Amino acid sequence: MRIDLVTLFPEMFAGVFGTSIIGRAAERGILDVHYTNFRDYSTDKHRHVDDTPCGGGAGMVLKPEPLYAAVRDIREQTAAYERRRCTIIFDPAGDVFTQKTAKELASFDQLILICGHYEGFDHRVYDLADRLISVGDFVLTGGEIPAMLVVDATARMLPGVLGDDTSAPTDSFFDVLLGYPQYTRPREFEGKSVPDVLLSGNHAEIARWRREQSLLATLRHRPELLPLAKLTSDDLKFLARQNEIL
Amino acid sequence: MRIDLVTLFPEMFAGVFGTSIIGRAAERGILDVHYTNFRDYSTDKHRHVDDTPCGGGAGMVLKPEPLYAAVRDIREQTAAYERRRCTIIFDPAGDVFTQKTAKELASFDQLILICGHYEGFDHRVYDLADRLISVGDFVLTGGEIPAMLVVDATARMLPGVLGDDTSAPTDSFFDVLLGYPQYTRPREFEGKSVPDVLLSGNHAEIARWRREQSLLATLRHRPELLPLAKLTSDDLKFLARQNEIL
Repeated sequence: MRIDLVTLFPEMFAGVFGTSIIGRAAERGILDVHYTNFRDYSTDKHRHVDDTPCGGGAGMVLKPEPLYAAVRDIREQTAAYERRRCTIIFDPAGDVFTQKTAKELASFDQLILICGHYEGFDHRVYDLADRLISVGDFVLTGGEIPAMLVVDATARMLPGVLGDDTSAPTDSFFDVLLGYPQYTRPREFEGKSVPDVLLSGNHAEIARWRREQSLLATLRHRPELLPLAKLTSDDLKFLARQNEIL
Repeated sequence: MRIDLVTLFPEMFAGVFGTSIIGRAAERGILDVHYTNFRDYSTDKHRHVDDTPCGGGAGMVLKPEPLYAAVRDIREQTAAYERRRCTIIFDPAGDVFTQKTAKELASFDQLILICGHYEGFDHRVYDLADRLISVGDFVLTGGEIPAMLVVDATARMLPGVLGDDTSAPTDSFFDVLLGYPQYTRPREFEGKSVPDVLLSGNHAEIARWRREQSLLATLRHRPELLPLAKLTSDDLKFLARQNEIL
């Protein structure tokens, strides 16, 4: 998958994309990450990319011309990806980013992520996007951190990115339910013990305990997710029992 | 505010925290960012920080000892912050991070952010946290990107971090409603024009248009936010008219 980051601050990505799973995916050629600083596309002699807002107000607004020129240049240079490409702008009005979005984005061959800064984009820039994505109800300095987040979550869904192919499915949210508590050695730590069942060697019991803990955590903290999960009749019986207790 | 990042990958933060608003806040002494690699607290001769999960399964689990030792060391060294300190672990079962959370966190003098990796923490590690925070329903490689996100959103709420003191209140989500469309020069760009009202010079009309555009965007994309906003009687009349049209 080719990733194009359109940003005024390409240096922000080095630490995150150079290490960890994303760095290894890039080394193995699964991810091909490119940076385009749209300041390079400013035709202004001072290389300005922003200007004051029409109608007044504080802050600066990102001008349309450099962003259009940058994105068009990327698209021309990567014409081979044209049919499997998605251009994204981060915006609180967009679709909330979830694991489902990550799966959808993983099916593209190229993502162009346009990262804003300052007060935001001139509204005409939004016409460049195939998709507006919101990463949550809070204000950030720019689109760079959201872009890292989306690339990380999406890259994990690409075949071969996770070293251990069995890792992904046990993560929380992979199957909608929250995860079960994990333990490792020591068996006893400052008076806190590993639950006996996990040391029993009884694999069926362990699987049942984990499933029930997942259901319980979801029931307690994110009950709205339960209807979205694939629940067995045993799951439903367990949940019914919890509701009787409550 | 002092920020302590407890992480196996401190180098991931350099690009983000070295530039932009966070970098400038650190230079001006408003933010004091420290990194603790909990691998340095492993007593294991191979400096392992993880081990296989009790009860079997794929992946590795972060052991409790190095994390307890690291966080206790930070707390001892920063005893002066004890009464205004919040220790955070990122977890999908936690409270969803919003602008309200950012405001709450901005009232502390110290945030200790514990960043996980691999399959997750030994469950006993959660006892170190004052607060579990979820940044959304998706799976990431580790807690580092969520930590950047939380620090960025929180830092923006600290006095003096934003150069222009009037910037923050016009951001979307500062007052719950989505933002209004922003425009800058040129007046005409590839057949797309700046709305006439913004060029009218009539400040009352401009303010009204912007408010209505905010209400309209929220009504269309995030109607669940409207009851949370401070709406005037003019706002309610405008929304009622929209509902008649729809």
